[in-house]
Amino acid sequence: MSALLSTAKLLISCQDRPGIIASVTNFLALQGINIIHADQHSLLVNGRKSFFMRLEFEYDQKLIDIDNLLNDFKKDVASLYEMEWNIFRDNQIKRIAILVSKMDHCMLEILWRWQSKEIYGDIPLIISNHDVLQKEVESFGIPFYYLPIQKEHKEKQEIEILKLLNDNQIDLVILARYMQVLSSNFINKYTNKIINIHHSFLPAFAGADPYGQAIDRGVKVVGATAHYATEKLDQGPIIEQDVIRLTHKDSKKKILELGKEVERSVLARAVKWHLEDRVFVVNNKTIVFN
Amino acid sequence: MSALLSTAKLLISCQDRPGIIASVTNFLALQGINIIHADQHSLLVNGRKSFFMRLEFEYDQKLIDIDNLLNDFKKDVASLYEMEWNIFRDNQIKRIAILVSKMDHCMLEILWRWQSKEIYGDIPLIISNHDVLQKEVESFGIPFYYLPIQKEHKEKQEIEILKLLNDNQIDLVILARYMQVLSSNFINKYTNKIINIHHSFLPAFAGADPYGQAIDRGVKVVGATAHYATEKLDQGPIIEQDVIRLTHKDSKKKILELGKEVERSVLARAVKWHLEDRVFVVNNKTIVFN
Amino acid sequence: MSALLSTAKLLISCQDRPGIIASVTNFLALQGINIIHADQHSLLVNGRKSFFMRLEFEYDQKLIDIDNLLNDFKKDVASLYEMEWNIFRDNQIKRIAILVSKMDHCMLEILWRWQSKEIYGDIPLIISNHDVLQKEVESFGIPFYYLPIQKEHKEKQEIEILKLLNDNQIDLVILARYMQVLSSNFINKYTNKIINIHHSFLPAFAGADPYGQAIDRGVKVVGATAHYATEKLDQGPIIEQDVIRLTHKDSKKKILELGKEVERSVLARAVKWHLEDRVFVVNNKTIVFN
Amino acid sequence: MSALLSTAKLLISCQDRPGIIASVTNFLALQGINIIHADQHSLLVNGRKSFFMRLEFEYDQKLIDIDNLLNDFKKDVASLYEMEWNIFRDNQIKRIAILVSKMDHCMLEILWRWQSKEIYGDIPLIISNHDVLQKEVESFGIPFYYLPIQKEHKEKQEIEILKLLNDNQIDLVILARYMQVLSSNFINKYTNKIINIHHSFLPAFAGADPYGQAIDRGVKVVGATAHYATEKLDQGPIIEQDVIRLTHKDSKKKILELGKEVERSVLARAVKWHLEDRVFVVNNKTIVFN
Repeated sequence: MSALLSTAKLLISCQDRPGIIASVTNFLALQGINIIHADQHSLLVNGRKSFFMRLEFEYDQKLIDIDNLLNDFKKDVASLYEMEWNIFRDNQIKRIAILVSKMDHCMLEILWRWQSKEIYGDIPLIISNHDVLQKEVESFGIPFYYLPIQKEHKEKQEIEILKLLNDNQIDLVILARYMQVLSSNFINKYTNKIINIHHSFLPAFAGADPYGQAIDRGVKVVGATAHYATEKLDQGPIIEQDVIRLTHKDSKKKILELGKEVERSVLARAVKWHLEDRVFVVNNKTIVFN
Repeated sequence: MSALLSTAKLLISCQDRPGIIASVTNFLALQGINIIHADQHSLLVNGRKSFFMRLEFEYDQKLIDIDNLLNDFKKDVASLYEMEWNIFRDNQIKRIAILVSKMDHCMLEILWRWQSKEIYGDIPLIISNHDVLQKEVESFGIPFYYLPIQKEHKEKQEIEILKLLNDNQIDLVILARYMQVLSSNFINKYTNKIINIHHSFLPAFAGADPYGQAIDRGVKVVGATAHYATEKLDQGPIIEQDVIRLTHKDSKKKILELGKEVERSVLARAVKWHLEDRVFVVNNKTIVFN
Repeated sequence: MSALLSTAKLLISCQDRPGIIASVTNFLALQGINIIHADQHSLLVNGRKSFFMRLEFEYDQKLIDIDNLLNDFKKDVASLYEMEWNIFRDNQIKRIAILVSKMDHCMLEILWRWQSKEIYGDIPLIISNHDVLQKEVESFGIPFYYLPIQKEHKEKQEIEILKLLNDNQIDLVILARYMQVLSSNFINKYTNKIINIHHSFLPAFAGADPYGQAIDRGVKVVGATAHYATEKLDQGPIIEQDVIRLTHKDSKKKILELGKEVERSVLARAVKWHLEDRVFVVNNKTIVFN
Repeated sequence: MSALLSTAKLLISCQDRPGIIASVTNFLALQGINIIHADQHSLLVNGRKSFFMRLEFEYDQKLIDIDNLLNDFKKDVASLYEMEWNIFRDNQIKRIAILVSKMDHCMLEILWRWQSKEIYGDIPLIISNHDVLQKEVESFGIPFYYLPIQKEHKEKQEIEILKLLNDNQIDLVILARYMQVLSSNFINKYTNKIINIHHSFLPAFAGADPYGQAIDRGVKVVGATAHYATEKLDQGPIIEQDVIRLTHKDSKKKILELGKEVERSVLARAVKWHLEDRVFVVNNKTIVFN
C-alpha cells in the first residue's frame, strides 16, 4: 500500500508574521498529509522581514486529488498571506540542457552523477560551440548539437540554442565551462534557471584566467563558485562555493588540476540542490535549504 | 516596547505521526506567539519513527504568563502526543563547572569565548586535581578548587567534586582535558550534562596517547571528538568532531600543537550548542540543530 | 636545443650521516646536471636515523649517457653510503591495471584523469569479477577482462589475473573498489605496487559497511583511505586520507554519495603520487614528497 | 655531549644555476656540520630563474666557531653565486611587539601560544591606541603602553610607537587587529617585519567591514589573510589564508564569531612561520617553507 504514497515539495515565501507555519501545517494536517521534512527561515529583505519555507510531504494518490488540494491551499492559505508559492511533484521530472565548450570535466561530473542517479532529471541534449566533445557526449546516449559561433553572427547561434531549449522544454541550463558570454535577452528568458560555474572564488578574480590572477597575487587559497547567471557577468546569486589550498610549490598546471576538482564538486552540488528545489533566490542572494 | 520581548526555546520529542507540527505551531499562534526559528527531524529509533523539534519563539512578558502557557501546552498538546518536552527561557542562565588537570588550552578557549559572550552562562567554579592552573583561573575572577587525588581514596575526591557541583547548582560539567576517569556513580548523576573532549578522532585511537597511536599507524589525518560522558569510556554520544591533516614532516610536538587547536574549537562548538539547547541525545547518538 | 633536455627522478634511502646531500648533489653538479627539485627527510626507523631523498633533475641526452652516469653513481656514491636507490626516467612509462567489481566511481575518476593527462601511464587492461562495467570500460578503448569467481576455485581466478598482470608487464595495480580479498601470494608478488581505496577513515571502521558502522556510532565525520595492500587486510601503509562532514540529516544514501566523492579524490591523489614516484614506504608508514 | 649541539638556520637566495646545492652542502659537510632539514625552490622572478633555500643544521659549539664559519661561507660560496643570505642562530631570540586596538582575540591567541611555547620569542611590550586591554595585557606580565591618537596629531603617536619599537630593539611587529593605517614612513622602517591580519579573504572584500560586504554579496565562504604590511593597504605579500563556510542561517554576529576563530589561527600560523624563518618574500609574494 505504501507504494501509492507520493511525495511533493512546497516552497513558500511571503512577508513574515505570526501564524504562517501554523496555517500551512494545519491545512496539510487536516487533509491527512504527513510532513516529512520542513525548513524555514526569516530574513530582512529591503527592510521587511520575509519568510521562506520548504516542506516535503507525502500523500496517498488514491485518497488525495492534488489539484483540488492546491486550489484549496491557494484559496484558504496562500491568498491570506499573499504568498508566492510553488509545488513540485515527484513525477514532474526536470529537463536539463548542458552547454559546454572544449573542457569536459564539469560536464562529465554531471553526467556521471546523473548516470548513477545522484542527480535526478532528464538530459535531452548537450550543446557546444565546438565539436571536440561530440563522441564523448554520444557515448552517454545523449544527442549532441554542435553550434559554432560565426564572429559577426553570435546572436544567430544564441537564437538556435534558444530554439533547441524551447523545443525540448528545458527547465534548467547548466553552463559547464561554456566559454561564451550570453546576451541579456537569453538570460532573461531563463531567470534563476541558468547555473554557471565560475572557476574562481568570487568576488575575487572575476573575469578571465582567475588562476593566473591568483598566482600573480600570491594567494594561498583559490576556489570555485556556482551561481545563477544574470545580466551582470559573474555577479549573479551564489549557490555554492568551495576552495582549495595552494602552496608556492604548485605550478599553474597543478593549480588548474586542483581547480578542476573543486569546480566539478561545487557545480554538482549546486545542480543537485537546484533540482531538489532547495534554493530560494532573494534579491541577489540565495537561501539554500540543504 | 520591543524591549519587553523575551525569547524561549521549546524542545520536543515523541513518536512521529501526522499533525504534530500543526498542533504545536497552532497552539503558539493562537497565543500570539511568533516563532523565530524552527528545526525538525524524524528518525527511526529502535524501529519506531520518532519526531524531534526545536522551536525558538518570542513573546511579550507583559501579555503572556509563560507558566500558564506551559500548563496549557502540557494539557492541550504534549499529553496528546505523549511528548517529552522541555522549555528553556532566556533568563534561565546555565551554570557551568570546568574540570581540568594541567593542560590549559581547552579551558582557556572556553573562558575566552565566555568572556567575549560567545559562550553564554555562569561559571561559578573551576576544579582541578592539580594546582598549576590556579593563578591563571583566578585572573578570570573565577574561584579555583584544588582537589588532589590520593591514590587509594580516589572516590573521596569525587565526592568532594560532587558536593561542589551540587552546592553550586551546576547544569553542565565540562571536562577540559581532565585526565581522570569518572566513576559510573558520578556520570549517572549528570546524564548528558558532562561534555568531554577526547583528543582523537573517535572511534579511532580511543584511550591514551592518541597522537602517538596516530603516528605509529601513519595516518594522514587526526582529529578531536567532543561527546557526552557515559559509563563506557570514550563511547558516549558524539556532539562534534573535526580533523587536521598531518604529513610525514610533522613531529609529535607539532602534532600536539595542531591537535590543541582542533581540540579547542571542537570543544567550544559542542559547549556552545549544548548551552543553546541545540542537542538531542537519542540512544547513543545526537541530533544537533545548528 | 632545450628540446633535448630529459628529466629523471632519483630516490635514495640510507642510514643518515653528515655529508649525504653534499655527496649526491656534488656528483650531479660535476656531471653538469641541474637539480630542479629536491626533497629530503630524516626519520627514526627501528631506532636508527634514516635518510630519504627524492631529486628531480634534467640532463642533456646528447651530452650525458645516463647508463654510464648511473654506474658511476653506484660506484662513487651509493656504495659509500650503502644506499637503496632507484632511478625513474621520463621515458619509462608505468603500466597500470585496474581491478574493479560493480561500482564504477573510483575507476571512472582514474580513467578521466588519465584521459586528461592528469594521471600519466599506460592502462593496457581492466579486470573485473563482474561483467556490468564492460561497455563502460570499452568506451575508453581499454580491453576489459571478465574473470568471474567460482566459489570453490577462487585461487583459479587469481592465477588468471596474475597471468594477465604478468603478460602485460604491470607496474601498478589499482583496486578501484574491487570487493575481493586478495591472497598473500598475490599481494607479495606486488609489494607496494597495489593501491587499495578503503571506503572509511582507517583505522576507524575497518572491514565491511563502514558507512553503516559510522551511522551506528553517530560520528560527525567519515572519510576514505588509500593504502598499499598488505597481507593484513586494511592495515597496509597509508598513502592518503581525507574526510567529509556528516550531520544527523544525512541519510545512508546521502552518505554513500558523499563517500563516493571523497573516495574518488583520495584514490586519485594516491595514484598520482605513486606514479610520480613521490612515495617511500618505511615499515608500515609512508613518506610522501608532494 | 649532545647538549653542546646548537642549531641554526641558513636562508639563501640567488640566481639559479647548476651546482648551488652542491656548493652549499659541500661547504657545510667539510666543516662536519649535519644538515637536519633542507628546503629548496626555484621560481621565475622578473623573467630570471631564481633559487631559494632554507637549511637547518646542527653544529658543536665547542668545535666550530660560527663567526669564522660564516666568514668562510661568504668568501667561498656566497660571493661566488652573488647570494643574498642570512643566518639565524637559536640563541638569537626575536623580539616582538604587538599593536592592538579594542578587540583582544588575535592578541590573546598569540599570547597563549607564546605562553605555551608554541610561539617562540620575547614580547617586551604591547601598544594600543585604547586603554581597554591594559589589565588583560598586564595579567601576562607584559608592559602595556597606551598611546591614544589625537585627531590632528596622528603622526605624533606613530613617532612615539617607533621610539618604543626602537628602544626595545623590536624584530617583528604584529598588528593584532590594530585598527589604524600606518604611514609609509613607519612601514618602510620595518619592511617584511610587520604582519597584519586582515579579517577577510583578500583580494575579496579588501577595506572595512568585510563580513558586511560578504553578507551583502551572499558568499558561502569567507576567510582571513595574514600578510606583510606594505605601503599599499591590504596588498602586501600574503603569508597565510584560510576560510570558513557560511550558510544563509548565519547572522552577522555568528559570522563575526566564526571569523574571529579563523583570524586567530591564520595570524598565529603566519607569526610562527615568520619566527621560524620559514618565509621568503619575492616581489609581492611569499615562499613559505613549512
